[in-house]
Amino acid sequence: MDNTVKRLAVLGSTGSIGQQTLEVVRALPHRFHIVGLAAGKNIGLLTQQINEFKPRFVYCQDSEARARLANAEYELLSLEDIARHPQVDTVVIATSGKSGLSPTLAAVKAGKNVALANKESLVMAGELITNAAKLSGAQILPIDSEHSAIWQCLNGETQPATQLILTASGGPFRHYSPAQLKEVTAKQALKHPTWQMGRKVTVDSATLMNKGLEVIEAHWLFDMPFAHIKILIHPQSIIHSMVEFIDGSIKAQLSYPDMRFPIQYALSYPERLSNPQLPRLDWNRINNLTFEQPDFDAFPCLKLAIEAGEKGGTHPAVLCAADEVAVELFLSQRIKFIDISNLIEQTLEQHQVIPHPSLEEIMAADAWARQKVMQLISGDNL
Amino acid sequence: MDNTVKRLAVLGSTGSIGQQTLEVVRALPHRFHIVGLAAGKNIGLLTQQINEFKPRFVYCQDSEARARLANAEYELLSLEDIARHPQVDTVVIATSGKSGLSPTLAAVKAGKNVALANKESLVMAGELITNAAKLSGAQILPIDSEHSAIWQCLNGETQPATQLILTASGGPFRHYSPAQLKEVTAKQALKHPTWQMGRKVTVDSATLMNKGLEVIEAHWLFDMPFAHIKILIHPQSIIHSMVEFIDGSIKAQLSYPDMRFPIQYALSYPERLSNPQLPRLDWNRINNLTFEQPDFDAFPCLKLAIEAGEKGGTHPAVLCAADEVAVELFLSQRIKFIDISNLIEQTLEQHQVIPHPSLEEIMAADAWARQKVMQLISGDNL
Repeated sequence: MDNTVKRLAVLGSTGSIGQQTLEVVRALPHRFHIVGLAAGKNIGLLTQQINEFKPRFVYCQDSEARARLANAEYELLSLEDIARHPQVDTVVIATSGKSGLSPTLAAVKAGKNVALANKESLVMAGELITNAAKLSGAQILPIDSEHSAIWQCLNGETQPATQLILTASGGPFRHYSPAQLKEVTAKQALKHPTWQMGRKVTVDSATLMNKGLEVIEAHWLFDMPFAHIKILIHPQSIIHSMVEFIDGSIKAQLSYPDMRFPIQYALSYPERLSNPQLPRLDWNRINNLTFEQPDFDAFPCLKLAIEAGEKGGTHPAVLCAADEVAVELFLSQRIKFIDISNLIEQTLEQHQVIPHPSLEEIMAADAWARQKVMQLISGDNL
Repeated sequence: MDNTVKRLAVLGSTGSIGQQTLEVVRALPHRFHIVGLAAGKNIGLLTQQINEFKPRFVYCQDSEARARLANAEYELLSLEDIARHPQVDTVVIATSGKSGLSPTLAAVKAGKNVALANKESLVMAGELITNAAKLSGAQILPIDSEHSAIWQCLNGETQPATQLILTASGGPFRHYSPAQLKEVTAKQALKHPTWQMGRKVTVDSATLMNKGLEVIEAHWLFDMPFAHIKILIHPQSIIHSMVEFIDGSIKAQLSYPDMRFPIQYALSYPERLSNPQLPRLDWNRINNLTFEQPDFDAFPCLKLAIEAGEKGGTHPAVLCAADEVAVELFLSQRIKFIDISNLIEQTLEQHQVIPHPSLEEIMAADAWARQKVMQLISGDNL
């Protein structure tokens, strides 16, 4: 095979990021070749993808579906075995939640290029993963638009940044009063003003938890103290983030909000590739970029996340797990929007942190937090 | 001498850019050492600068002043001899007008780092200078805020840009009607909304000629076809320019409008240096960045400049010379604001272009254009 063709495994291929990754591959078939596909339960779409891309390695979380997928044309492997397979150059981790953690570690330990869209990996196990990457020489290539922007701005600089400015759309409830926030429905929370994303991350964007998780990710990806990571609300989502350097000069990366930009950059790095399907910014239509400070009082998840990141240890894992359960409870209408942060805060308060945790300790903290949230709502202690 | 200290010659040290260069040197005395100073006629300020910085080499354009400056503590040399002196690492070309051309060529031929603020050098003799730099290995380090922004954004990219977007404040007469533009006075033209600069460049900013000259400079500095250099009006002057890459992603550089940023970057490159005197962007106060398309009809100088750049040869030299004379005539109230572009246009129309001109041919075209403008106004052909 031509060595300009990268062999990709896409873990989470049926989710939003996974599907957009495959769109990029479809647009650039001479540069990317799919060798692995892995999905959760969407067996219909996974089957279509297998027929189209003809991967060598397949995984499906659903065991019944897995049995039906058994086929001589590809091997059924575990997520970890796909992630570390010698025939894979770049592993795209596009699974959601903590299921991304173990394959991310496997890929990093195997020294792969890891295109990382799964937030939980770095949030829950940032220390483990970045230490493993230092040992193996694995490169972690961020797929989040904010971290991709920072990464692009740091490119070629010989000195570390002095400040990272993560931009945030502000979500659908920007400028909502406390009274309005109390009445917010799941339907409203699922309508993001600028980005098309999965359900969990869309609700996280509405609470600003998503931005808080990104602060923790930025801390690990760019080795930046929390005090030097700022958040700036920028409702148009055109500037995806900014970096300030020691001389006070700032660089920013801009594009329309379309995840195919950061996905493609992570896949093609250090090159950039022409892709006519990606929309060019039209400066005849962009007249105004606005900025405002985030409202930490109205969106307490933001502060909870940054504090959990600063405290470190198992705190961020507890934050993630409690958030995942709380968002599910909100989407199933068992709790209100403002209860999401209340539940997470109470869970964090009751957590006995373990510093520098192992993977097992992280998983135990995750399990503890999930149980704790359920205890809290069954006791109606909100 | 410590090899982390760069030895600088500042040609045009009493002008706006020259003085700001010395401010940067004052703030970072452990990194920069002034070995050469050269000025036009401001003997008072030059004497102060000599006393403060104790250069080894001095030049003054005014011959009478030069005689008075004779002194055992430094050598009086020509601009060119300072520019190519072995004891000079970086030459800052901050002279105004065509007087920068010959020392720029001397510095480039000697393989120096040339920190270039003088627009005319590249506009009039872009082909000569860039060819000489390729031969000698000289680096041309742009000091204009726009070109510095582009240069910073290109840093670390492995592929050429697909589009350069030069931002422009729009000057003091943005949105003026044709009738209003007819009545504009020199006093009004000298009030720039965002930048503090010399008189000539301030008027050039009001006619947008300055932006046109920057397009020609960008063409030579970054080897970019004119069709791929766009202008975007951005009245706040926070984004100093942008670069679009092959994947459609855009990078931008931001700071307050303060020439010390690009000056310091050109001097410290490839490093960045901490300078507490440079103001950090305060995102509590920046709420809104706006953008609009330039009005080529209201500001014909912009179009004239780009066309002269595209035609090449001696056209840009004629453009520069005609503009310099026309701006002087406007400042001395002999012509109206709108006559500046009329005079330049007529001069260009009557010019017989010489392709790939030598320095002598460029200088002859310059002299021809100056004479032609004077002929035109004496004939009252406006």
